[in-house]
Amino acid sequence: MADKPSIPKGTRDFNPLEMARRNYIFDSIRKIFKTYGYLPIETPAMENLSSLMGKYGEEGDKLLFKILNSGDFKAKLDPTAFQDTPAGKLGPLISEKGLRYDLTVPFARYVVQHRNDIVFPFKRYQIQPVWRADRPQRGRYREFYQCDVDVIGSNSLLNEFELIQIMDEVFTALGLKVVIKLNNRKVLAGIVEVIGEPDCLIDITVAIDKLDKIGMDKVVAELEQKGLSKNSVDKLKPVLEMEGTTKEKLDFLREYLDQSPIGMDGILEVDKLFAFLNEHPVETSIELDLTLARGLNYYTGSIFEVKSLEVQIGSVCGGGRYDDLTGIFGMEDVSGVGVSFGADRIYDVLLQLEKFPQEQEMDTQLLFVNFGEKEANYILSILRSLRSNGIASELYPDAAKIKKQMTYANNRKIPFVALVGEQEMQDGVLTLKEMETGNQERLTPEELVERLSNNIS
Amino acid sequence: MADKPSIPKGTRDFNPLEMARRNYIFDSIRKIFKTYGYLPIETPAMENLSSLMGKYGEEGDKLLFKILNSGDFKAKLDPTAFQDTPAGKLGPLISEKGLRYDLTVPFARYVVQHRNDIVFPFKRYQIQPVWRADRPQRGRYREFYQCDVDVIGSNSLLNEFELIQIMDEVFTALGLKVVIKLNNRKVLAGIVEVIGEPDCLIDITVAIDKLDKIGMDKVVAELEQKGLSKNSVDKLKPVLEMEGTTKEKLDFLREYLDQSPIGMDGILEVDKLFAFLNEHPVETSIELDLTLARGLNYYTGSIFEVKSLEVQIGSVCGGGRYDDLTGIFGMEDVSGVGVSFGADRIYDVLLQLEKFPQEQEMDTQLLFVNFGEKEANYILSILRSLRSNGIASELYPDAAKIKKQMTYANNRKIPFVALVGEQEMQDGVLTLKEMETGNQERLTPEELVERLSNNIS
Repeated sequence: MADKPSIPKGTRDFNPLEMARRNYIFDSIRKIFKTYGYLPIETPAMENLSSLMGKYGEEGDKLLFKILNSGDFKAKLDPTAFQDTPAGKLGPLISEKGLRYDLTVPFARYVVQHRNDIVFPFKRYQIQPVWRADRPQRGRYREFYQCDVDVIGSNSLLNEFELIQIMDEVFTALGLKVVIKLNNRKVLAGIVEVIGEPDCLIDITVAIDKLDKIGMDKVVAELEQKGLSKNSVDKLKPVLEMEGTTKEKLDFLREYLDQSPIGMDGILEVDKLFAFLNEHPVETSIELDLTLARGLNYYTGSIFEVKSLEVQIGSVCGGGRYDDLTGIFGMEDVSGVGVSFGADRIYDVLLQLEKFPQEQEMDTQLLFVNFGEKEANYILSILRSLRSNGIASELYPDAAKIKKQMTYANNRKIPFVALVGEQEMQDGVLTLKEMETGNQERLTPEELVERLSNNIS
Repeated sequence: MADKPSIPKGTRDFNPLEMARRNYIFDSIRKIFKTYGYLPIETPAMENLSSLMGKYGEEGDKLLFKILNSGDFKAKLDPTAFQDTPAGKLGPLISEKGLRYDLTVPFARYVVQHRNDIVFPFKRYQIQPVWRADRPQRGRYREFYQCDVDVIGSNSLLNEFELIQIMDEVFTALGLKVVIKLNNRKVLAGIVEVIGEPDCLIDITVAIDKLDKIGMDKVVAELEQKGLSKNSVDKLKPVLEMEGTTKEKLDFLREYLDQSPIGMDGILEVDKLFAFLNEHPVETSIELDLTLARGLNYYTGSIFEVKSLEVQIGSVCGGGRYDDLTGIFGMEDVSGVGVSFGADRIYDVLLQLEKFPQEQEMDTQLLFVNFGEKEANYILSILRSLRSNGIASELYPDAAKIKKQMTYANNRKIPFVALVGEQEMQDGVLTLKEMETGNQERLTPEELVERLSNNIS
């Protein structure tokens, strides 16, 4: 009981300064989502485990936090089942709910469940925490926030372009230098068709995804281990090694893929996005990156990933088009596209670069020193008019030693302190002290309100 | 898989309209917390189960959502343990984390854990969801939001008065008629002392708490069943039956309690609070209610509860002073006081009374009808300047039939639609249609920005 209390590993408390900084990120992102006409929704922290299992691959299933059933969770279980069933299989027998792993699957569930009340195309944003039982490490948490923006019910490439604009605006607003990498799953599908391994799209994209991290040799080894012929791998290599401008890459691919209808489809989409970008340039550099694959299986068209150019860290934003995500919940053929901003990584980048603005949070402007009950009563009336004018202000709650009260003001970084003694009460005034300069003024309560109103604005 | 998807019972999705309404409540409350100098913190959804167990009574322990340990949760368990251990005892063996049940215990844990970084008295607010495995029913959810405001590290009654001011301001700002009921645990302790049952404080307060719901006869029966003598119950009855003005009640109690030092202490505190209220009246009526006990054991002084005067519903806010809440985490003698606003009940009350303001959320102001690619390209430039002027605007993503696009604008309640055809593009203008009136105007892009900026402000 008397051990120093702690919180589960991989989770965090946020103190007031961290809250102000996090809110700066959320507010910046939310404001931009709104100007593009996206609407907010929220979903519960807990989803039915059946909604989550099997959506994130075998690895993902293991990373789901499962909620133990309430009450006598073993009542309906064969008494020997616990002994005989491995943990992985036993879990779902004593647990029917799990914490959400991302915001995309709950969104798909939401869309299907509320399909009759939704106006399509549905443009929604969602800013909520997600939970993953990942091994905690620097920059990877078990509870972290995602900021998702999706449009579902339209397959127009204008949506992809809009998301690029949004990504550009967000990172520009935050003052961060990034590159937006884009690719297209149809192009990847064309490539596996061309090399003669059409069933290995997933294996190949997962392997390609690791190219950055483990290098060409290991990727080749992994592909061969997955059963690709040496011939296929040889055919694939020039694609992996391809460099040059976007135009050069597209020219190469147009030739490489010309026997693959789906591949050519993908090229057309990429072409079109770059045509939009040509007409309506954005601040951020956009790069076609064929090694970009993204792990999740539900992507079917454009895919995106944003990397910081200033700080070595995983992607700070990512997403793509999914032609049938709602199919897993029984609603077929509804195409959508979206991206997810990783608020915690963005936080780490801004912190490392010292790019957080000076805190603008409305914090206490004025502390009244407490000399005792009579003075407190006099001050309470002044406080009321300060607060009703939006000026955050406090009376120190105890008639403690002045030094203690001034230390409080100092530590809380409260810029003004007011002193009210016998004489001031008689004269109907107070003494205002500016902490930074030490300057003192004698003011009436009305003058005080005006003085501090000016100071805020 | 193809079953209609659903969410766990007792949990909810929030659609954009519900989000706007909920944010109206949170923003109103948050703004008032801030003007009183309270600072935000957040704590993780998951706490160590050891931080939560035993803090909410036996009933509370059962209502905790427990997280199944990740990986092989049964590896370290004796193979027969599952068979032989009842579920209540087995839970903690396969689960070491739980979802937070309220914000007060995590706050106490936070204060102790971060004691060296905190400036005391610490005024914090916290707005986050909590989870309870309660039986779901109308108005009672398994996931719901609390808005807590506490000051810890000061035993001044000014804090209690400040919280009364805050409760008053919140409900006044929301336009709700309520009564703030107050009582004092010391007064209750005095009463049990006087009736000669000093060890039965908890039993008696729990029973008193039910007076409203089950009536005097059943409360008496319950008290006798708990072991109180008939004599004690008889001595107690006049207190339960006491009516009249606050002054009359206090006069009665001063006499009734005059042999109990702790009871007289409580009377003094109540007196003082009413003296503050006399000097600085609030809008809301304040009522001394001796049958107010509040269930939780950690309260030691003032206790509060706010009831709606317009809608039959449980309390919409409640709290009190706790002299040793941090003691459970090994930090003794730190007194605090706080109240918690029940956002979900407040929501239900506002909804029933139709007191939500017309939505002020920045929602899409203008939809451009999509006639095809060439027009879209022309429109994208206009959109950029609308959005950079803070005007939320959209281009319908597909060149669908006009009727479909107009229906979208209608259903989304978008007030303006813009049409751009061949002729408009040539003339560098567009046609703006106000949906409500049907009025049409021909405007340049610059005129459009100005027209809609005026409309917003």
